Amino acid sequence: MGNVDYVYPSANVESSHRVAIPPPQPFVTTLKNSMKETFFPDDPLRQFKNQPTSRKFVLGLQYVLPIFEWGPRYTLEFLKSDLVSGITIASLAIPQGISYAKLANLPPILGLYSSFIPPLVYAMMGSSRDLAVGTVAVASLLTASMLGAEVNATENPTLYLHLAFTATFFAGVFQALLGLLRLGFIVDFLSHATIVGFMAGAATVVCLQQLKGILGLEHFTRGTDIISVMRSVFGQTHKWRWESGVLGCCFLFFLLVTRYFSQRKPKFFWISAMAPLTSVILGSVLVYITHAEKHGVQVIGELKKGFQDRSHHRRDSSRRRNSSRRSFSMFKNYHIDGNKEMIAFGMMNIAGSCTSCYLTTGPFSRSAVNYNAGCKTAVSNIVMAIAVMFTLLFLTPLFHYTPLVVLSAIIIAAMLGLINYQEAIHLWKVDKFDFVVCMSAYIGVVFGSVEIGLVLAVAISVMRVLLFVARPKTFTLGNVPNSMAYRNTEQYTNASNVPGILILEIDAPIYFANSNYLRERIKRWIDEEEDRKNLQGKVACNMSYSIWPLLGAQALALANPGSEVMKKMNKSELIEKIGQEWIFLTVGEAVGACNFMLHTTKPDLVKEEQGTWNNV
Amino acid sequence: MGNVDYVYPSANVESSHRVAIPPPQPFVTTLKNSMKETFFPDDPLRQFKNQPTSRKFVLGLQYVLPIFEWGPRYTLEFLKSDLVSGITIASLAIPQGISYAKLANLPPILGLYSSFIPPLVYAMMGSSRDLAVGTVAVASLLTASMLGAEVNATENPTLYLHLAFTATFFAGVFQALLGLLRLGFIVDFLSHATIVGFMAGAATVVCLQQLKGILGLEHFTRGTDIISVMRSVFGQTHKWRWESGVLGCCFLFFLLVTRYFSQRKPKFFWISAMAPLTSVILGSVLVYITHAEKHGVQVIGELKKGFQDRSHHRRDSSRRRNSSRRSFSMFKNYHIDGNKEMIAFGMMNIAGSCTSCYLTTGPFSRSAVNYNAGCKTAVSNIVMAIAVMFTLLFLTPLFHYTPLVVLSAIIIAAMLGLINYQEAIHLWKVDKFDFVVCMSAYIGVVFGSVEIGLVLAVAISVMRVLLFVARPKTFTLGNVPNSMAYRNTEQYTNASNVPGILILEIDAPIYFANSNYLRERIKRWIDEEEDRKNLQGKVACNMSYSIWPLLGAQALALANPGSEVMKKMNKSELIEKIGQEWIFLTVGEAVGACNFMLHTTKPDLVKEEQGTWNNV
Repeated sequence: MGNVDYVYPSANVESSHRVAIPPPQPFVTTLKNSMKETFFPDDPLRQFKNQPTSRKFVLGLQYVLPIFEWGPRYTLEFLKSDLVSGITIASLAIPQGISYAKLANLPPILGLYSSFIPPLVYAMMGSSRDLAVGTVAVASLLTASMLGAEVNATENPTLYLHLAFTATFFAGVFQALLGLLRLGFIVDFLSHATIVGFMAGAATVVCLQQLKGILGLEHFTRGTDIISVMRSVFGQTHKWRWESGVLGCCFLFFLLVTRYFSQRKPKFFWISAMAPLTSVILGSVLVYITHAEKHGVQVIGELKKGFQDRSHHRRDSSRRRNSSRRSFSMFKNYHIDGNKEMIAFGMMNIAGSCTSCYLTTGPFSRSAVNYNAGCKTAVSNIVMAIAVMFTLLFLTPLFHYTPLVVLSAIIIAAMLGLINYQEAIHLWKVDKFDFVVCMSAYIGVVFGSVEIGLVLAVAISVMRVLLFVARPKTFTLGNVPNSMAYRNTEQYTNASNVPGILILEIDAPIYFANSNYLRERIKRWIDEEEDRKNLQGKVACNMSYSIWPLLGAQALALANPGSEVMKKMNKSELIEKIGQEWIFLTVGEAVGACNFMLHTTKPDLVKEEQGTWNNV
Repeated sequence: MGNVDYVYPSANVESSHRVAIPPPQPFVTTLKNSMKETFFPDDPLRQFKNQPTSRKFVLGLQYVLPIFEWGPRYTLEFLKSDLVSGITIASLAIPQGISYAKLANLPPILGLYSSFIPPLVYAMMGSSRDLAVGTVAVASLLTASMLGAEVNATENPTLYLHLAFTATFFAGVFQALLGLLRLGFIVDFLSHATIVGFMAGAATVVCLQQLKGILGLEHFTRGTDIISVMRSVFGQTHKWRWESGVLGCCFLFFLLVTRYFSQRKPKFFWISAMAPLTSVILGSVLVYITHAEKHGVQVIGELKKGFQDRSHHRRDSSRRRNSSRRSFSMFKNYHIDGNKEMIAFGMMNIAGSCTSCYLTTGPFSRSAVNYNAGCKTAVSNIVMAIAVMFTLLFLTPLFHYTPLVVLSAIIIAAMLGLINYQEAIHLWKVDKFDFVVCMSAYIGVVFGSVEIGLVLAVAISVMRVLLFVARPKTFTLGNVPNSMAYRNTEQYTNASNVPGILILEIDAPIYFANSNYLRERIKRWIDEEEDRKNLQGKVACNMSYSIWPLLGAQALALANPGSEVMKKMNKSELIEKIGQEWIFLTVGEAVGACNFMLHTTKPDLVKEEQGTWNNV
């Protein structure tokens, strides 16, 4: 731009800055590129390029089973760290596993099984170093509500159990397929705000369900919405058991205090990590001594109750998983391939469903503990699995006297951490619409059901994406003082309009879904300009994708059209229609040319642009 | 930019070009603005501003009933034009109306009724001057296939008839509601390519159905897919009636020749417009003279057959309607409010359903004839309605001898015009993916059913929009020789990279749905640059919406972030994190600063950017 003046001198300077039409490429190349961008944006096979076959084999093995990559580099130093973190997460996994299995209406021992085989599979196939495998509350609740709609868990426990395994199996197949087909990006369509709302809603629902355990109620509504639960709770106040309530509140207080302390002093993370197991032990000892099980405090009882063997679940937690993996890898600065992880999770659940496990994933809270405990590799998962195995072999009788109310307290404490009210406040500050979306998902879950909330969250997210596309921002540009730059006049309040020229910018690519809107919106910009008697016949458009007839405007100049626009305009012979001389490299040049025209030609000589461009 | 040099001199020049944070606006204002942009992009109430109450009332009346706007300005000159065009479209409406009613399995006279009341309603409420109201083949076929799935039209004609009226009524309510709620933009999500494919497919299906009439078959498959039809046709070759076939082919040839002639010489548009009526008259006379009805040529018979009275339909044709209205208004350069038209169509169908009409809309072909015949206002619709009324009152007995085969020929001739093969070729040339979309919709309709094709078309369109958002283009910028402009190196092959600096541009706003992809894609850009040993620690990002941590890059500069980005970065205190001094007005300034840094500081002194930005 340096040597192009504001007042446009002649046509031959501009020809040196001609807007390029991108070189034509064969259809196959274009298709290949766009497929690659769609399904392999991170180019996972880049490392295989220009390698000998033997190396390719090793790399391939390492790609499928990352354990072969970090295994050879494993040191005793690492083992020490992994041992500590593995035992820490095991102490969390055991009480949580039992609690969540109860939540899913499954035998409690399934929670322990689910912390045994799946972590081993993940340790071989997963690429995250910090992720701790286990069951999660929301998936457990969904299992209970979806399977419960088909089969009553107490009346027909065997069928219910088999259904749960089948659901886990198909969830695994589904996850593995999504990963293999590189469709993991689908979860990106769930916006952060909807996830915050949905998770908080699900956590609230789970907490509400725990009122049954805390108050020692025997009959409880099967609905999950707040209204049914409240009616059920306050409809039988005479059946509340104070022993149970007091015990529950004490443990909940203990858990919350330890967590608060650990949050304040991250070095003592193990205090909050050990708290659930401590509660279980304390609670069991207390019941054993006082025989409270005979005074209205329900206990787990025999842990090993009949079952063996395989089930449909939802993928809502995958996004969260995804996000938990991503945030940790971001801290440690290594790359996670979401689709590959999807495959690892799928294999984990397929293997799990064949070994009496139900749905497992990588819960954020436990992964955070793992990270804080200083884990180095996925060996921490192996350590956890071994610790759980020992528990299964030798310690199950100890859980006989564990009061259910302690499990409820553990669940509530974990769930309260999922209600991310700070994030909701942040959303309110940064983007009000996001806040509304978040609250809708929350209210959908709490007042409707988890399924309604899920559908609502997905529908709002997709609608929002569609609205984004349908209504791109357009704004007028003005000259920023002391520069050649033209910028949004709303953002730069000191930018000045160029008299007689309307400079528009479209802040998004133009697709078929917004071309009609943009046509009308630009028409309105021109009408409004004319109302102000400001427009003498020129419009300079700074657009990045396309062009269409500007009704009423007397001339149209394009500045910096993108390669797609130039390609399409070239193929539809629109460049000739507009005139190559009206397409500029920069807004400055376009404005210069318009100014030159304005001051040298009569208005009625200015050429009129009319044409149809329906095919975007 | 003029006084800013390529080599960056000091920090105080840049401060004069500081990127502005848009002035804060109260939430209510923002909400109001975004609601207005979403639902009232064309600002239909702008004319009411600053007007006295009486004028507002007049404007309001004119807004709701446009007839009050153009009525007072109506001249005899206009009437002359409208008379000619009205009679022309009536001569087309009568035979087509009868034919399409047959296609919908409804009594033929309903086709005439539907060209009587709805045009009168539209003449009052519609804003298009060229649109001719009437029934269309695709909607008729859909009516037949959707109602046919519930009720057999020959076994239970009264119920079928009532269902058709009910469908029309609810279609009208649905249209009016869409318009009132300003949701007309929903139809924009059907891409042009899918509509071309869908319409061609529907036209093919309609043509295939006409083989029954042409070949004089009495039994015919109820399926609409090509395989069932072909099996039905070739499974009863012994029942083909040559008399019927010969007659049909002759009339089809006549219709196609007249249309070809009129297309070549637009002045003789009336030849092709009159051809259908001529065929009907010729055919009827021929049958009357030769008594061909006793030799296998089926005739309409008694036109007035029992019915009185009210019905659910699909909105697929609304987009086409929309597009037909828009293209004509574009030629005559006046504004059409799509949502207002939606209301007019809805009222027309609600009124129609109460007066024995079935679904009407603004068929493109008839509107084109209306336009070519030189219509000036909606009075041409009134003229057509009167002509149809005369036909209903005095001429119905004439249709007794009209052979069905002529109606089939008329339908086929009209349908062949809907198969827009030139557009398909154009799509192939301009955008291969659009072509694939178009063919999928076509194949879905022809080999599946109209419903399958419709669902396929909508699904493909929405998926495409979602993909557009999920995978925005990113590209590297280079310096265009002899200018200060930085442009896409793929488009401008002569643009040169700045050594040691990677300049990225993101060609779309950043939403939650693409932020993960962009993070990974940018990571890959940086990795690839590092492989080439080209990157010494600087990334200049030309982005319009957001920012996120650039793993591995040693410094990050932002050029020209949009107002939304600045607002969000400000609110999340990210500006301080990046440093106001690393945000630039132009790419040139950012590159200058990076270069200055590169040449004056050691690489390990370059500040590192790390941060989380999940909340887009």
